[in-house]
Amino acid sequence: MDNKISGKVTSRLTLYHSILCEYIEDGIELISSPQIASRLGIDDSQVRKDFGLLKNVGRCRVGYNVKELKDKIEKTLGFAHQKDAFIIGAGHLGLALAKYDNFSSYGLNIIALFDNDPYKVDMHINNKQIFHITKLPNLVHRLNVDIAILTVPKNQAQKVADFLVASDIKYIWNFTPAVLRVPDNIKVWNENLIASFLQFACKDIE
Amino acid sequence: MDNKISGKVTSRLTLYHSILCEYIEDGIELISSPQIASRLGIDDSQVRKDFGLLKNVGRCRVGYNVKELKDKIEKTLGFAHQKDAFIIGAGHLGLALAKYDNFSSYGLNIIALFDNDPYKVDMHINNKQIFHITKLPNLVHRLNVDIAILTVPKNQAQKVADFLVASDIKYIWNFTPAVLRVPDNIKVWNENLIASFLQFACKDIE
Repeated sequence: MDNKISGKVTSRLTLYHSILCEYIEDGIELISSPQIASRLGIDDSQVRKDFGLLKNVGRCRVGYNVKELKDKIEKTLGFAHQKDAFIIGAGHLGLALAKYDNFSSYGLNIIALFDNDPYKVDMHINNKQIFHITKLPNLVHRLNVDIAILTVPKNQAQKVADFLVASDIKYIWNFTPAVLRVPDNIKVWNENLIASFLQFACKDIE
Repeated sequence: MDNKISGKVTSRLTLYHSILCEYIEDGIELISSPQIASRLGIDDSQVRKDFGLLKNVGRCRVGYNVKELKDKIEKTLGFAHQKDAFIIGAGHLGLALAKYDNFSSYGLNIIALFDNDPYKVDMHINNKQIFHITKLPNLVHRLNVDIAILTVPKNQAQKVADFLVASDIKYIWNFTPAVLRVPDNIKVWNENLIASFLQFACKDIE
């Protein structure tokens, strides 16, 4: 992905992409920037500005070619680079993410889940097996996976993060509200749901 | 919340807040900006700059007063304004959010859940009742709730969103990957998990 593209633009590009996929399903070949803008409740000029960041996007008088635009967005956001990840914690959130089919179309492959509950081990969810957490170090190396999506309860988060690091996980997408302590060479991405709520709620709701 | 505070700053302020809560639990009264910065793997100057946005934050030679700093963050982010919300869809994601205790400490009260599955109706999760979706219009008015957190499957998202609008819901926090069509007076906040992954994965992982 082009590093100059900000988080807000990335977010809008993925929404445009969803709309383009709908158009393709419906067999529609052309789309205009006002059509996209009105679906998202944003300004037409914003959509055109974002498209200006995509390389060589052609536009004819009546609009953009839907398939070409979709391809350009995929190339710009780097969907083509497939990445494998494990989900750590097969609770409600872990299972929800494992069932979230949308991830794979954006290049994120959930390979398996891990939990410490013996009743969950060997179950399958969305064709992905749940393994006992003790199998993690072995599978990290055998399957060459270095991304973990952490969905355990807050009070277990640090202990499990330490185990992930010891198992050679390099990237942690942290869905827990805990602020993890990790060595400098480990990257943590905090999925801060409450921060997005605060932005939403406090700006828009009086 | 101060509208001049960006999404990234909001996100960092909530992380600082989590660290401050830990310090209070541990009975520690003072904290320095390098201590916070090192926990989050960010630059000390960034932390000080963010604190500069809070009004009247005092700092003595050895650091900040933990309780005072926590209060200032809460005031700035508007935690004090409690907001009530319903979760629509009692699947894994809806249940995960209902169990996410952290929300209430940030002013978001999940009042109840709604689903169309008769087997789930009248169950309780984290002391919150699951109602049949047909009860929604009545409870929106009786309990004066206008925020819905949408966690239904993608292929039902639009139909359910139409029902939310007809039931007088004004704000939809959309966790589905669907791009919803709603009237202009309804605010939709798309929780775009895949966009955050793309930012994380494509910037940091070669």
